[in-house]
Amino acid sequence: MSQHFQFHLDHTDESTSARAGRWSTPHGVVNTPAFMPVGTLATVKGLTVDQLREAGAQMVLSNTYHLALRPGADVVAEMGGLHGFMQWDGPILTDSGGFQVFSLAKLAKLDDDGVAFRSHIDGSLLELTPQRAIDIQEKLGADCIMCLDECPPHDVPRERMLEAVTRTTRWAARCREAQTRDDQALFGIVQGGTDLGLREESAAGLLPLDFPGYAVGGLSVGESPREMYQTLDGTVPLLPADRPRYLMGVGTPRDLLEAVLRGVDLFDCVMPTRNGRNAMAFTSAGPVKMRNLKHQRDPGPLDPACDCPVCTRYSRAYLRHLFIAREMLGPILLSWHNIAFYQKLLRDLRVAIAENRAEEFRQVHLAAWGQ
Amino acid sequence: MSQHFQFHLDHTDESTSARAGRWSTPHGVVNTPAFMPVGTLATVKGLTVDQLREAGAQMVLSNTYHLALRPGADVVAEMGGLHGFMQWDGPILTDSGGFQVFSLAKLAKLDDDGVAFRSHIDGSLLELTPQRAIDIQEKLGADCIMCLDECPPHDVPRERMLEAVTRTTRWAARCREAQTRDDQALFGIVQGGTDLGLREESAAGLLPLDFPGYAVGGLSVGESPREMYQTLDGTVPLLPADRPRYLMGVGTPRDLLEAVLRGVDLFDCVMPTRNGRNAMAFTSAGPVKMRNLKHQRDPGPLDPACDCPVCTRYSRAYLRHLFIAREMLGPILLSWHNIAFYQKLLRDLRVAIAENRAEEFRQVHLAAWGQ
Repeated sequence: MSQHFQFHLDHTDESTSARAGRWSTPHGVVNTPAFMPVGTLATVKGLTVDQLREAGAQMVLSNTYHLALRPGADVVAEMGGLHGFMQWDGPILTDSGGFQVFSLAKLAKLDDDGVAFRSHIDGSLLELTPQRAIDIQEKLGADCIMCLDECPPHDVPRERMLEAVTRTTRWAARCREAQTRDDQALFGIVQGGTDLGLREESAAGLLPLDFPGYAVGGLSVGESPREMYQTLDGTVPLLPADRPRYLMGVGTPRDLLEAVLRGVDLFDCVMPTRNGRNAMAFTSAGPVKMRNLKHQRDPGPLDPACDCPVCTRYSRAYLRHLFIAREMLGPILLSWHNIAFYQKLLRDLRVAIAENRAEEFRQVHLAAWGQ
Repeated sequence: MSQHFQFHLDHTDESTSARAGRWSTPHGVVNTPAFMPVGTLATVKGLTVDQLREAGAQMVLSNTYHLALRPGADVVAEMGGLHGFMQWDGPILTDSGGFQVFSLAKLAKLDDDGVAFRSHIDGSLLELTPQRAIDIQEKLGADCIMCLDECPPHDVPRERMLEAVTRTTRWAARCREAQTRDDQALFGIVQGGTDLGLREESAAGLLPLDFPGYAVGGLSVGESPREMYQTLDGTVPLLPADRPRYLMGVGTPRDLLEAVLRGVDLFDCVMPTRNGRNAMAFTSAGPVKMRNLKHQRDPGPLDPACDCPVCTRYSRAYLRHLFIAREMLGPILLSWHNIAFYQKLLRDLRVAIAENRAEEFRQVHLAAWGQ
């Protein structure tokens, strides 16, 4: 790893694979396990960067595909990269754009060179190659960037999934080659769906490329939680213990607990903000639907166990009113709380790991959430 | 005026009628002239109360009609009144609901008893009387409350306007009578459209009721700016100089300057937030349309002369991107800036008044705005 990055493991839990660590990046330290709120278009929807900080976030994610379409990587580069553009001065991670190309755009061509697709905004024909994915991400300037990978639906036939795995490996080598900046940590992405043999094949292809960190892609794309956890059981141990492990696009609070106990360090997901916008709050007693009539005259906080700016200030009655009246402040406040909830969950879990009680932490929390 | 309120005039400009003062209320002091951001449904759209404070706001307005429909005055009262409900600890003003009944709802009956109307939300039949308007506002618990008034369209025949004026006077007497709390300042509202004779008649009817402050209603409802300013020329001098004068629902930055120089102390308007949501920014060089292509690569601030949290941090390129991408943060940031712009305008004007240069201030600003 370059001088710009250091991953230090403070402690590994005695009875699980959970690790508590610190990851130094050019824009500051991230305590792991860590959850990155998603700022798709260079903004975590509805929140200022100060509110993100107050919620306890240390690192955010932004989406290359979306930024490349609007406002374009060159505009972001001219404005000082993502840090200058969105004014978040902490670490940032960008994905490669591959996942959105395969899920949002209309594919026009896919071969070893790369992928051609039509923009979901205006239908224009665009191309993404491994080199181009790196070039765009170097312009965006995040601290951590991702190799272009192919992420097919989870239930494709094995030979199709194998094809994606081998192509992802070839693309990873060309991404490694294409990288010119040494102040960005480039991660390889393990694919292979829920097939552990393919996961092994993917890891075996990527490890020789000696990436400073590894991501697990292709999960939380339709498979069951049980399948995801089993896949992690077989995949995470394949990744170097001395480097950050990132589970992409995951997940529910339970998913985070299960994955951390299996050795994952980094997460991102739209769930806290998307659910927040839709009036669903995560709380220490499980999910709460904020539009429910039962909150109409409830003077109590959303979550008495939460010390976020929303729970220490507003009543459930007020939060419900905001959603019933379709006021912007409802989605804002619930997104804010939900991110704070995720951050507190991992902060508390880090303490539990240091005290060798990660498994107890998992059980207590799942029971409290009714899971 | 009760012990709970003090209006102190620090200075009256030597060459205009502009006044700089301080108005003490149960929830703190307001420096006048003052602009109240509008929080119709107990939230200034898109902003937290901390952001309102940061923008320099000292007092906010909330709308009785809307709150009475959702969530209902009883719910607000149970949550500690508007202050507890929305967690704004500064002064609050509520209108009587009359303006919205006449502009939003479908009228079913109007006579001296009050007005019956159908809710614009679910069509249910409701009634508002002077007593009921006070009862609701006492439950909402704002520092400053308004008499129920009748506000007809500005271009009705004189006899119809006279009818509204006399009814407004009769209703004002019954509002005065109905008031039971002494920690709320109840204002009378002068009506009469652009007819100065009717304005005189309205003021003559209200002054004997000895209200602790007077509002000018029925302006900015379709008449020209020139007509509004002429009406103020003839109306404001009719109101007691030792009490706050409030021009309801006004207006543009220019409207504020013109009205302050004619002796008005208080304002409210949805313009800074509504225009902000629609990508229109007020700046020291006049209005700016944030979606304009010319901002695409502009690294400069929205308004170099503004020290608000938006202008000191974000580029025009970023603000434009947020609007083009339809991100919530665009409306949030522009509402924030626009409120800060209004607050700074009146803060600077207060200084100019103290230095007897209100007229120069007006001319310099109108020229800078291209007006």
